[in-house]
Amino acid sequence: MQVNPLVVFTPSGKRGHFAIGTPVLEAARSLGVYVESVCGGRGICGRCQVEPMVGSFAKHGIESAGDSVSDWSPKEARYTEKRGPLAEGRRLSCSATVQGPLVVDIPADAAVNQQTIRKAADQRDIHRNPAIQLCYVEVEEPDMHKPLGDLDRLKEALEREWGYTDLLVAQQILPQIQPVLRKGEWTVTAAIHKDMESSRPTLIAVYPGLKNEAYGIACDIGSTTIAMHLSSLLSGVTVASSGMSNPQIRFGEDLMSRVSYVMMNPDGGRERLTKAVHEAVNELIGQVCAEADVSRQDVLDAVFVGNPIMHHLFLGIDPTELGGAPFALAVSGAVHTWATEIDLSMNEGTRVYMLPCIAGHVGADAAAATLAERPNEAEGMALLVDVGTNAEIVLGNKARTVAASSPTGPAFEGAEISCGQRAAPGAIERVRIDPQTLEPRIRVIGAEMWSDEPGFAEAVAETGVTGICGSGIIEVMAEMFLAGITSEDGVIEAAKAAISERVFADGRTQSYQLWSSDTGPDIIITQNDVRAIQLAKAALYAGVKLLMDKQGVDKVDTIQLAGAFGTFIDPKYALVLGLVPDCRIEDVKAVGNAAGTGARMALLNRDHRREIEETVRKIEKIETALEPDFQTHFVNAMAFPNKVDPFPRLAEDVTLPARITPENQTAGAPRRRGGRRRT
Amino acid sequence: MQVNPLVVFTPSGKRGHFAIGTPVLEAARSLGVYVESVCGGRGICGRCQVEPMVGSFAKHGIESAGDSVSDWSPKEARYTEKRGPLAEGRRLSCSATVQGPLVVDIPADAAVNQQTIRKAADQRDIHRNPAIQLCYVEVEEPDMHKPLGDLDRLKEALEREWGYTDLLVAQQILPQIQPVLRKGEWTVTAAIHKDMESSRPTLIAVYPGLKNEAYGIACDIGSTTIAMHLSSLLSGVTVASSGMSNPQIRFGEDLMSRVSYVMMNPDGGRERLTKAVHEAVNELIGQVCAEADVSRQDVLDAVFVGNPIMHHLFLGIDPTELGGAPFALAVSGAVHTWATEIDLSMNEGTRVYMLPCIAGHVGADAAAATLAERPNEAEGMALLVDVGTNAEIVLGNKARTVAASSPTGPAFEGAEISCGQRAAPGAIERVRIDPQTLEPRIRVIGAEMWSDEPGFAEAVAETGVTGICGSGIIEVMAEMFLAGITSEDGVIEAAKAAISERVFADGRTQSYQLWSSDTGPDIIITQNDVRAIQLAKAALYAGVKLLMDKQGVDKVDTIQLAGAFGTFIDPKYALVLGLVPDCRIEDVKAVGNAAGTGARMALLNRDHRREIEETVRKIEKIETALEPDFQTHFVNAMAFPNKVDPFPRLAEDVTLPARITPENQTAGAPRRRGGRRRT
Repeated sequence: MQVNPLVVFTPSGKRGHFAIGTPVLEAARSLGVYVESVCGGRGICGRCQVEPMVGSFAKHGIESAGDSVSDWSPKEARYTEKRGPLAEGRRLSCSATVQGPLVVDIPADAAVNQQTIRKAADQRDIHRNPAIQLCYVEVEEPDMHKPLGDLDRLKEALEREWGYTDLLVAQQILPQIQPVLRKGEWTVTAAIHKDMESSRPTLIAVYPGLKNEAYGIACDIGSTTIAMHLSSLLSGVTVASSGMSNPQIRFGEDLMSRVSYVMMNPDGGRERLTKAVHEAVNELIGQVCAEADVSRQDVLDAVFVGNPIMHHLFLGIDPTELGGAPFALAVSGAVHTWATEIDLSMNEGTRVYMLPCIAGHVGADAAAATLAERPNEAEGMALLVDVGTNAEIVLGNKARTVAASSPTGPAFEGAEISCGQRAAPGAIERVRIDPQTLEPRIRVIGAEMWSDEPGFAEAVAETGVTGICGSGIIEVMAEMFLAGITSEDGVIEAAKAAISERVFADGRTQSYQLWSSDTGPDIIITQNDVRAIQLAKAALYAGVKLLMDKQGVDKVDTIQLAGAFGTFIDPKYALVLGLVPDCRIEDVKAVGNAAGTGARMALLNRDHRREIEETVRKIEKIETALEPDFQTHFVNAMAFPNKVDPFPRLAEDVTLPARITPENQTAGAPRRRGGRRRT
Repeated sequence: MQVNPLVVFTPSGKRGHFAIGTPVLEAARSLGVYVESVCGGRGICGRCQVEPMVGSFAKHGIESAGDSVSDWSPKEARYTEKRGPLAEGRRLSCSATVQGPLVVDIPADAAVNQQTIRKAADQRDIHRNPAIQLCYVEVEEPDMHKPLGDLDRLKEALEREWGYTDLLVAQQILPQIQPVLRKGEWTVTAAIHKDMESSRPTLIAVYPGLKNEAYGIACDIGSTTIAMHLSSLLSGVTVASSGMSNPQIRFGEDLMSRVSYVMMNPDGGRERLTKAVHEAVNELIGQVCAEADVSRQDVLDAVFVGNPIMHHLFLGIDPTELGGAPFALAVSGAVHTWATEIDLSMNEGTRVYMLPCIAGHVGADAAAATLAERPNEAEGMALLVDVGTNAEIVLGNKARTVAASSPTGPAFEGAEISCGQRAAPGAIERVRIDPQTLEPRIRVIGAEMWSDEPGFAEAVAETGVTGICGSGIIEVMAEMFLAGITSEDGVIEAAKAAISERVFADGRTQSYQLWSSDTGPDIIITQNDVRAIQLAKAALYAGVKLLMDKQGVDKVDTIQLAGAFGTFIDPKYALVLGLVPDCRIEDVKAVGNAAGTGARMALLNRDHRREIEETVRKIEKIETALEPDFQTHFVNAMAFPNKVDPFPRLAEDVTLPARITPENQTAGAPRRRGGRRRT
């Protein structure tokens, strides 16, 4: 029996036997090897380029390849004549046919075709399977004998040429269809969205003639910062990224102040917050589009993540219910909507997908981080922590995953710290304290040296030393403990005043002077600052410990620190302070903006949307406020580092943490507004 | 073997055996007998009332019934205590159970439950199966241990209690869900739309607590008049109807002038026409809602029909392509959209359904008329004619249906007639001419007598006799022919001037004076008026004849005249003039606003939507402009009545009709703007 020749695709290694004359594109598709093609094999889009390999591939069971592909075709000649030559060795897989045993490489090349992208930050592969497919078709001209509408004939063509038997049509196509078909002289590229909530592919945009590129945005709406990536949906390449402060800050620094604002301004408060975030997102779309020289009209898909309050405000939902128990989400499942419904300025047909929220304080951002880091697929016990005003904590392995949020408050971000400030030039970001002399060394954002190195004074001459940002706060707290300035229970030791004038104690207050200069303010760490950090870290640790209890473990195997907090703090100091449970330091990793990465994954591959929806359904949600053990853990965790047993002295004078709600927040004394962490 | 008791439902006669204790509602549903229930059997909505019959029902095989139903239940007692007594003999079918052989009548009662409605106009039964279902549910309160969103818990309840496993949610629900659930204290009535294009049931509105009524509108957008019905979707009763002039008239009297307006005003012309019709529709919604004391918010479904140009403008589509060959529709299939997408002011979640168009000149109005009159299901050859600026003609039987439009122009509506006017008090609507004396008798809108009856002068003293409207024009043309004033070829006979001074002939022009008075204008029928009617009727007849050729018949069995034209003209005169082919006069019927009836059918029963979509796919579309025989038929049909062979004298001086297009319309001399028919 004659056996058809073997064709192997790299890098996937997928293989099969194909009859002589089979187009390589068809062979790839039949094996599930993703090769883009917009023009449906007409040889005009150039998206289906592949590289037949020359040489011996014994490991693939192919002795010799290279001449086993068909000759250069007229279609390829026409393409290169019009569009310029292909890269050396490249062929259009819609034209090149199998002529014998073959090894074909699918090039990871941004210019035309890319199966995976590599993100410098985390070396992550995102396999592409975007929601948008561009389909070039030739449409029959109108015929008075068969008076089907123009749209109806386009649908016929999409069924005939691309197999869409069940296509829905977005409303806004109707007025466009006639001019577009005529401008394209009865050829048109249809953008079809294959991830509609209805499960029906939907025609969302039409372009005259061949349209060879489509883009999508992935956006993480943080309470402090909104970050956006613009990616090509055809190549997977991120072509621009940008970020900006969340303008809702003017209505309230942190989440609960914004909920308060909504509650106290029933006549339009929510609307103002929603409008502010929509405007910011629209501005960012403008920025990334300008940076990449892409038209807003070509942005055809969008994925958003954010914590529950950002999520609700973005969707125009009043977040008041999230401000107090039982912290009821209006919607927890994934949300699909039209960009125009929420006043976003992209193509009129663009769909918006928002990842599901895990719980009332564990949002779509935590879901996205979970998608990116997959603690739920780990062999060992994996801890994923994203710290903001609340810490969102996911702990799991492939057997079981639990999640909770813990009310850390904004101390880690520099708020509630007397000299705290946002990360900006002039802010102290690193601290070392000599245990003997108690003399500090610092590094300041904007200066490339330590304060005891020559030239430091000149380096900070312009900015001055203005305050201390989040990573500096963590370091100074840890260094003060390591130098014996603070005790295990977080008290600044008055006795140390004898060693250094930097330690001040008058019987009522204690502090440590981290920095002083003639030109700027003294940077002082007060006893209250230490208390604020103690409370924050105790809340974080107690949340983690609670989840460890639920999992029945007393150690974790890996720790992933997500977000700005995770990016800028030194894991060593996080361990010293007991922010996180003990773990081998090499297994503690900053994973950057994991929420943003998850959003990008969901943008580029709709399978990831189903994956995270399923994952979120399976995650067990733990509400710390309902768990008596949380309070015990919290008290224990006040110590530096954490104690196993309650710490007697503290147990008496510590107020147990409750959710910060708009009520208790606004009922209490005005809270200090500190700086914010850079992101 | 024990046989369960027989239960028979009237009026359907559906029957089955059911175990003792089966709720009657459940028995009905299992047989496919439609009984409404909003509350899901809780005994609070009262929608499921039935009437167990007392007596002997030998024909149903039941000797004695009446005591075979369970006793008055606490649920029923509670209902009547709160909501007042049920009508004599009525039971709540969710409470009453089968206790023996039973005959149960499903009352056709507007107040609570009605399976069919009777429309006075045509005695038509519309079986109900509306797209909207109201579902009352009790929703679990939020639980911190199981942090599903409020919406997600509502979806759980709808799945549990109503079996909706696959529910989609309209975007605008998201901000409403939390306040509505809390206002209803965790009970809510969900409005579910079951006729989405996606085939997925969709939650489109939520109401706190029990919501026991929902409405829909059916609207026929005519180029002259917009007519609207407001119907209860739960009982099927039409609770209000209204109509108004189409305000697009100020941009152009007839369809082609409006297309011209769009073409000549590329910067906003189309937008102005679209806005005008949307505003009118919104005003009508306000009128019908006010008349029936219904909130706009309770209008949850809407069906629109209209000719292709009205259809396109209503949807915001430029109709220019419809202004010239090949008369390409932007979309021919049925259109589903959101009311908010086209700026209609109803509930935010209301869907709009537009029936399919048959062809470029045979619109959704003709489709609706076809749905109402069903020529496609006739045993004999059935002709359905709707005359406007174009005549839309459907000819068929259950084997085959063909459709065409014919360019009659607006003469039948009184335009292009020298003394033509819209139907209003003072307009001549009926005419008789004495064949001996050639003296006319007339009737005038607003006067209850003929002009030769005593008191006529007083009766018209206020209005005067101001012109002649469409039905009067048909009658005067026919009577002039019958009296010999006009010849078979439509020439006013100069010789008749010798008999009556009313006939005027000076060798160049001829006319007939229908009315003269001291107080008002003379009403004169000119030779040109006769020509205009000849052209219009020839076009109509030629279109019909062409379809008869396609069907291979030389006679039709029934004729249905739809629309205002059909309603007001006397079928006898239509036959005398040869507007329609010969037919027994008793088989010629005016069917009123068949398009409006079809729209109402599609509103009240979504099965009718599938039916007409399928019917339209099957109808063979004939483009008269492409058929050489059309011109022959046209020339033949210029005669009174129609000739079988070409009419030699006319064949020379008659311009064959072409589609009136914006080009040929505006290129020619300004057309006279005449009156409009009343509707």
